[in-house]
Amino acid sequence: MTKVTAQLSVSMDGFYAGPRHDGDGDWLKSAESHGFFRVTRWATEAMAWRERQGFAGGRQDANSEIIAESFASAGAYVMGRRMADGGEVPWGDEPPFRAPVFVVTHRPRQKLLRQGGTSFTYVTDGVESAVAQAQAAAGGKNVAVAGGGSLVRQVLRAGLLDELELHVVPTLLGTGMRLFDADLDLDEFEAIELTPTRVVSAPDVTHIRYTVNGRAPLLLDDRGRGTS
Amino acid sequence: MTKVTAQLSVSMDGFYAGPRHDGDGDWLKSAESHGFFRVTRWATEAMAWRERQGFAGGRQDANSEIIAESFASAGAYVMGRRMADGGEVPWGDEPPFRAPVFVVTHRPRQKLLRQGGTSFTYVTDGVESAVAQAQAAAGGKNVAVAGGGSLVRQVLRAGLLDELELHVVPTLLGTGMRLFDADLDLDEFEAIELTPTRVVSAPDVTHIRYTVNGRAPLLLDDRGRGTS
Repeated sequence: MTKVTAQLSVSMDGFYAGPRHDGDGDWLKSAESHGFFRVTRWATEAMAWRERQGFAGGRQDANSEIIAESFASAGAYVMGRRMADGGEVPWGDEPPFRAPVFVVTHRPRQKLLRQGGTSFTYVTDGVESAVAQAQAAAGGKNVAVAGGGSLVRQVLRAGLLDELELHVVPTLLGTGMRLFDADLDLDEFEAIELTPTRVVSAPDVTHIRYTVNGRAPLLLDDRGRGTS
Repeated sequence: MTKVTAQLSVSMDGFYAGPRHDGDGDWLKSAESHGFFRVTRWATEAMAWRERQGFAGGRQDANSEIIAESFASAGAYVMGRRMADGGEVPWGDEPPFRAPVFVVTHRPRQKLLRQGGTSFTYVTDGVESAVAQAQAAAGGKNVAVAGGGSLVRQVLRAGLLDELELHVVPTLLGTGMRLFDADLDLDEFEAIELTPTRVVSAPDVTHIRYTVNGRAPLLLDDRGRGTS
């Protein structure tokens, strides 16, 4: 069955990149990129990631197995416009996805075909439509929400996310782009509940996979003399 | 050797309670308490916590063992003023600490002696002094920073924290009091680095213990053509 999944590398304080880089300067010199490189370092040092990018070397370890598994289980991707634009040059002629990618954007653009099975389809009628198109294209595999954080939150808020895997990196950045920001549209007495289904512990990252159960009210327990 | 440790229950989005309750209304009815009760539920359902509070029942499981271990390893506590004030009535004549507690506050107050080995000493000359007094009183056991979040950040920022254990609860609160807020005093190209030393996975919470390594610059890796 096709599940809608997301996975993101985050610092212990919840950032997936440093403070957002706007404007012209060199992104590579920005605080955003420095934070992003720190939280994704575990992946870029893994053999399975490096192979997909055409880089030599890397470690063959539990981290690498998790990356290989993620690539293998995804039949289609949904991606935010900013991530797709930012990746267009560095991913080159043969992007690492090897599957159809549906980019959520406001700007219409012709479908882009790349080598190795990757295509980029620009979806202008919203996140639900992008997820539905990806589900139809996934061939029974999963739809992976590739990021960024704002798209993951949109999919979660819309109740479309089945599974979330966080790669929690043992660093505190103090500032940056937060995966879980204030726009989850929850009231103060309500939460989104999940269940951890797999934890893999490596020296440089803790991988926690969750099933998303959905919204639920916050209740008191017997300390609060409410129902528990 | 006496280590300075902290442990806190947090939601996946980093909150240890709901939005801060100020003013007069009933704290138990506040969003702050509802968030706090959600993220600490795993503990209050554990036998070791309930025993210390004088409550019957509870589960004897991995969560309970972690609580028992935390109580056993702490020879003294450091606590924020707000937490100490808030706990004074519910903890009653025999608070769960059974060890000296040093409360960081601006208001001088006479030492409070309770039954079962707990005392509260009000320290008005800063967090370093409170930690030093707790170290002297800990009898070779650990100094536990009991919270709240603002005190944990102060101790971390001052470079005094050796070990941090997060009890990550599979819930998204969306809003509330964040453990890691913007006041860690890090610049944008710098992080506080940690190393995970133990991960215990339970169905309702993931316990991750970290050693605090300290501040380090954020470097680029080979994707950024910097040093890795």
